[in-house]
Amino acid sequence: MLINDVIVTPIAFRDPPLLNSWGVHEPLALRCIVQVVLADGTVGLGECTGGTTRTEELLKVREAVIGCDVFATGEIERRIDAVLGDRPGIGGGFVGMPSKAARAVFAPIEVACLDAQGKLLGVRVCDLLGGPVRDAVPYSAYLFYKWAEHPDLDGSGAIVDGWGPALDPAGVVAQAKIMIDRYGFESIKLKAGVFPPEQEIAAIKALAEAFPGMPLRIDPNGAWTVPTSIMVGEALAAELEYLEDPTLGQDGMAEVAKQVSMPLATNMCVIGFEDVPGSVAKGSVGVVLSDHHVWGGLRHSLELAAICETFGLGISMHSNSHLGISLAAMTHLGAAIRNLGYACDTHYPWNSDDDVIKNGPLEFAGGTLAIPDGPGLGVELDHDKLAARHEDFLASGRSQRDDTAYLRRVQPDYDPTLPRF
Amino acid sequence: MLINDVIVTPIAFRDPPLLNSWGVHEPLALRCIVQVVLADGTVGLGECTGGTTRTEELLKVREAVIGCDVFATGEIERRIDAVLGDRPGIGGGFVGMPSKAARAVFAPIEVACLDAQGKLLGVRVCDLLGGPVRDAVPYSAYLFYKWAEHPDLDGSGAIVDGWGPALDPAGVVAQAKIMIDRYGFESIKLKAGVFPPEQEIAAIKALAEAFPGMPLRIDPNGAWTVPTSIMVGEALAAELEYLEDPTLGQDGMAEVAKQVSMPLATNMCVIGFEDVPGSVAKGSVGVVLSDHHVWGGLRHSLELAAICETFGLGISMHSNSHLGISLAAMTHLGAAIRNLGYACDTHYPWNSDDDVIKNGPLEFAGGTLAIPDGPGLGVELDHDKLAARHEDFLASGRSQRDDTAYLRRVQPDYDPTLPRF
Repeated sequence: MLINDVIVTPIAFRDPPLLNSWGVHEPLALRCIVQVVLADGTVGLGECTGGTTRTEELLKVREAVIGCDVFATGEIERRIDAVLGDRPGIGGGFVGMPSKAARAVFAPIEVACLDAQGKLLGVRVCDLLGGPVRDAVPYSAYLFYKWAEHPDLDGSGAIVDGWGPALDPAGVVAQAKIMIDRYGFESIKLKAGVFPPEQEIAAIKALAEAFPGMPLRIDPNGAWTVPTSIMVGEALAAELEYLEDPTLGQDGMAEVAKQVSMPLATNMCVIGFEDVPGSVAKGSVGVVLSDHHVWGGLRHSLELAAICETFGLGISMHSNSHLGISLAAMTHLGAAIRNLGYACDTHYPWNSDDDVIKNGPLEFAGGTLAIPDGPGLGVELDHDKLAARHEDFLASGRSQRDDTAYLRRVQPDYDPTLPRF
Repeated sequence: MLINDVIVTPIAFRDPPLLNSWGVHEPLALRCIVQVVLADGTVGLGECTGGTTRTEELLKVREAVIGCDVFATGEIERRIDAVLGDRPGIGGGFVGMPSKAARAVFAPIEVACLDAQGKLLGVRVCDLLGGPVRDAVPYSAYLFYKWAEHPDLDGSGAIVDGWGPALDPAGVVAQAKIMIDRYGFESIKLKAGVFPPEQEIAAIKALAEAFPGMPLRIDPNGAWTVPTSIMVGEALAAELEYLEDPTLGQDGMAEVAKQVSMPLATNMCVIGFEDVPGSVAKGSVGVVLSDHHVWGGLRHSLELAAICETFGLGISMHSNSHLGISLAAMTHLGAAIRNLGYACDTHYPWNSDDDVIKNGPLEFAGGTLAIPDGPGLGVELDHDKLAARHEDFLASGRSQRDDTAYLRRVQPDYDPTLPRF
């Protein structure tokens, strides 16, 4: 079945003021929704990071994808790489691994193709990936330091959300309680790199006290020096399941890995297949946080999982602000990854009210999301909601995510240079 | 769609007296044909190595596979591993990589499940693997030293085949001419380790003269010492595309790899995912010869291909004596492997007359096999031929392949201990 059209819709949706080492989430998060339309009218759905650059890249490859067989995702990837990569030639022969840009643009298109295949065939996406080895995929409570509200910077009023502030250990614990009450998560991740490490250590210790035995993780996004990372790792030796990206770069991570007792996890120093050999040689990470949006779709994520299994690395899943199409794709993938050894990250609780799927948002039970019933991804687009979120994007005048610029409107001297501590 | 039955049929088919470092192919090669029967009567086909041990293993896992969803190949693999492996437990959680035995038994069942899926859905197996990146898969002319006939050891008469003898360079070139005339292969592999290396070097040089520019390979199955391997590699520096398994073991291969100019290929020192890290660390091989029968099916072979791409290794395909179901599976797989950089090995020309498929044998054109039209693998079982080959197996009284014992009936003092030279 041939692909007749690829519809790319940039959208924006409400996002709370979540703090991180670069700044703070803006009032609107940006995303793209991709619809792959087949000759018989079947539509497959994909979702990826948003903004104008990604939208333009998707539109740039549109013509190369139209006319392809929806099953020929390998060929589609090659065509996308030929348009976006720096290598010549669609056609026969070995053209090597696609560029990172090509992988990121291919990812939502591959997901949409798999969704369309599933809809055509009457099977779930996970069934096209070798079938599920679990019926539901565990996710973690993804905690953030956050402001009580988006400040009133332009006179249109502050934007309050239902989560309250979290600017100290007590606030973090309160947020965890809300999130775990609502969704039943059985692992906790704290986005860190915001306050001096001593306060963030205290927050993890407070979580450990409030949730005894719960696996805990902390992720400062590379905000710490090697000595700070080792200090935190030692201070939290009893509390942490893994320590995520304490510092930047393979060499720094490898140095930290040698000195701390828990595995290091990453979505920053191993973000593509080309990073794996160096990481393996140096021993820089113990757990790779896969992300199908970054690694080039669901099948390549399974390849990554096999690489991790082969080299004795753990695998879990990274998240960016996202909606239900991505969550469904993550869940079908997570159901098929044999060696998924950790609950996956998801931002969905922060953004699900603005989802663009029908009958949404998707509902966690006991901290897991059951594999959506198929066919395909098992989610359907609500075209009215999509149109509204697209209007929000257009009205925002925004072109890309910039957490630093937004924070600087409140703290003009904010310096996001890493390491911060 | 649930699996209602798994039918395992051990078969035997005629095989010429092909020489190798362990001995010589017996008059009958052994193989198993696997039929996975779904609740609606759909039948998927698989093929693997034969003999009584493999047959018994397949029958041992039969009950664990019956009742599974045909799409749940990950779960089927886990069940097979639970029966055959040394790890506990069917059910949730991470159970690690299946044992080698489990992978070998899972392989024909996975292929049969994919064939059945394709038949159910009306798509080709390659379309279930990400789609083809080429329309036809290149194979190589797989040459063997061989006797003119199977000797008359029991008074029932010698068995002559149409290939003639190949016991010196001229015989090897004559065999290559027949094979290339018939099938159009554009690469040549010589199975070696039979005669002293000087004669085998002369055979490759004779092939290079007879087929100028044709990629050539030699494979003594680990019959050479490290110094002999280096000597051969240096003598054939101008002629060889790659040097396959000149010597045994990662360390020996690594030593040879450092001293010769062409890549080393292997299907002996990297035969499972657990062999990859050591090989990568030592730099023992440049090309992995995948084999879906050994690596646990088509999807795991794609994972291997991704590992090879990630670590800068080439990938091609190994073969054992096989029939058309395996060739069809190899071709769907080869069509989907982006980084397939070399023509694949196949024994099919030696055995295709006894194939058990309808409308067979499959036909090479220009040295390639076009992807069989689906659905599924695109081949259908000829039940009369299957029954005849099964009778041949039963009548043979054979339980396993033993090239050494067979050669010793002619040369009682034959010592297959490696290295031979």
